[in-house]
Amino acid sequence: MILLDGKKISDEIKSEIKVSVEKLIRKKERPPHLAAILVGDDGASLTYIASKIRSCDQVGFKSSLFRYNSDISENDLIKKIEDLNINREIDGFIVQLPLPKHINEQKVLLSIDPRKDVDGFHPTNFGKMALGLKSFIPATPYGIMKLIEKYDIETEGKSCLVVGRSNIVGRPMSILMSLRGRYGNSTVTLAHSKSKNLAELTKKADIIIMALGIPEFLKYDMIKKDSTIIDVGITRVEDKSKRRGYVIKGDVDFDSVSKKAKFLTPVPGGVGPMTIAMLLQNTLDARL
Amino acid sequence: MILLDGKKISDEIKSEIKVSVEKLIRKKERPPHLAAILVGDDGASLTYIASKIRSCDQVGFKSSLFRYNSDISENDLIKKIEDLNINREIDGFIVQLPLPKHINEQKVLLSIDPRKDVDGFHPTNFGKMALGLKSFIPATPYGIMKLIEKYDIETEGKSCLVVGRSNIVGRPMSILMSLRGRYGNSTVTLAHSKSKNLAELTKKADIIIMALGIPEFLKYDMIKKDSTIIDVGITRVEDKSKRRGYVIKGDVDFDSVSKKAKFLTPVPGGVGPMTIAMLLQNTLDARL
Repeated sequence: MILLDGKKISDEIKSEIKVSVEKLIRKKERPPHLAAILVGDDGASLTYIASKIRSCDQVGFKSSLFRYNSDISENDLIKKIEDLNINREIDGFIVQLPLPKHINEQKVLLSIDPRKDVDGFHPTNFGKMALGLKSFIPATPYGIMKLIEKYDIETEGKSCLVVGRSNIVGRPMSILMSLRGRYGNSTVTLAHSKSKNLAELTKKADIIIMALGIPEFLKYDMIKKDSTIIDVGITRVEDKSKRRGYVIKGDVDFDSVSKKAKFLTPVPGGVGPMTIAMLLQNTLDARL
Repeated sequence: MILLDGKKISDEIKSEIKVSVEKLIRKKERPPHLAAILVGDDGASLTYIASKIRSCDQVGFKSSLFRYNSDISENDLIKKIEDLNINREIDGFIVQLPLPKHINEQKVLLSIDPRKDVDGFHPTNFGKMALGLKSFIPATPYGIMKLIEKYDIETEGKSCLVVGRSNIVGRPMSILMSLRGRYGNSTVTLAHSKSKNLAELTKKADIIIMALGIPEFLKYDMIKKDSTIIDVGITRVEDKSKRRGYVIKGDVDFDSVSKKAKFLTPVPGGVGPMTIAMLLQNTLDARL
């Protein structure tokens, strides 16, 4: 079994990004600048944002965090976004999701200038991706494609099962794996909450991308020998033996699946670190 | 076997559209206005356009055809499109494809105002569709979804195989069938030119959408009993016994498949007439 080492690959990508930033600085140009909007004080959101800001520091990006109270109106939030859209010192920005319930998430995402939409959630970017055009690809699917590329995993004509149809992981993954290209051309099946006989589907797949959110769902007897298994799951499972009171579990039963799969991502250290690296990559691309 | 009668259903839809137009007229408002841009004099394109204009007449729409020589520059064509974008008398317009080779099709499509893009080919509309938002849906996939709805075909949890990954039929179909909704929620597999063992995939599918372009490819022994078969193929096959010298064949061997399928579209008279009806529907929606 070959471990798809997202930690290592993401470090390599970040090093390459850092070199690009240093080139800009030598040319007396300003470094890329990523901004983040955070509404409210959700704990998980704060953790994600802190991690993104830390990564910006690592590669020499400038970063800005704009925080608003959870009672900000939809209109006011959209005005803030419009300010960022026209701010020439900011190359890309993200709106940390989820937003409070009184705010229409789609309306907010639509107000982002697609040229600064480094999360790739705007319909124009999503549509370009689906049509096979150049665009900002959402960071998690982009990171998975990068892992597949770096480990040179054969995808053409392979059966690929994507489990989960979210707009940020499953749906874009299903599209990317079936596009024409060196690391596409798979025969993709997209399974979701209404799918039946999931275990029959997993058993037949050469490549499985799990974005289901059920800890350790995928087990030894549900997969094909020598398959590629990508685990996007990150669920907090209570564990009183740990100081923080929980452990992070993926959708894959790592211990058993690792005895049968050919390629497998660990959790943590697989898809997670790739996601942040690709957000940085999108921001660099927005700058250049 | 139940025939999915696209001719009949499209006539019903056109009648409903006509009623909506008459309401507008009674309110002293102008009828919907569809414009088409045709570059060059490709025979098939002329036939399609003529048929679209005739359908506009049937339902009381105004229509305009803008024809340009095949040597028009890309820039000049885009200028014509920009004129239509701001023309307040035109609700929607289409650019008949294919365009001459010296013109970048994607660049041209990107210049269309998404609010007038009744073909639904602009990335913004395509992305909205993929994200489950309201948008103009490309006419052929929209017509197929309408057939499924009108015949109340069960789709939830069913396995659906889409054969062909074009941006105008296969790709959007694969997305629409797997979206949440009364006539979505299928477990969709998208097969294409790089897929292997196509006959194994077709045999397992509850619903097959064929957009392959190989006449009479799908035969009796390749399908499951009581499946739903939608045939998007329209290939001209030479037939000297016919006055025009050819017959139109679908991707499905109708005679044999009709003995085993539960629902089946004929060719012609299935998906084809639905496509034009849904283009009219999109134009009406653009007017309202």
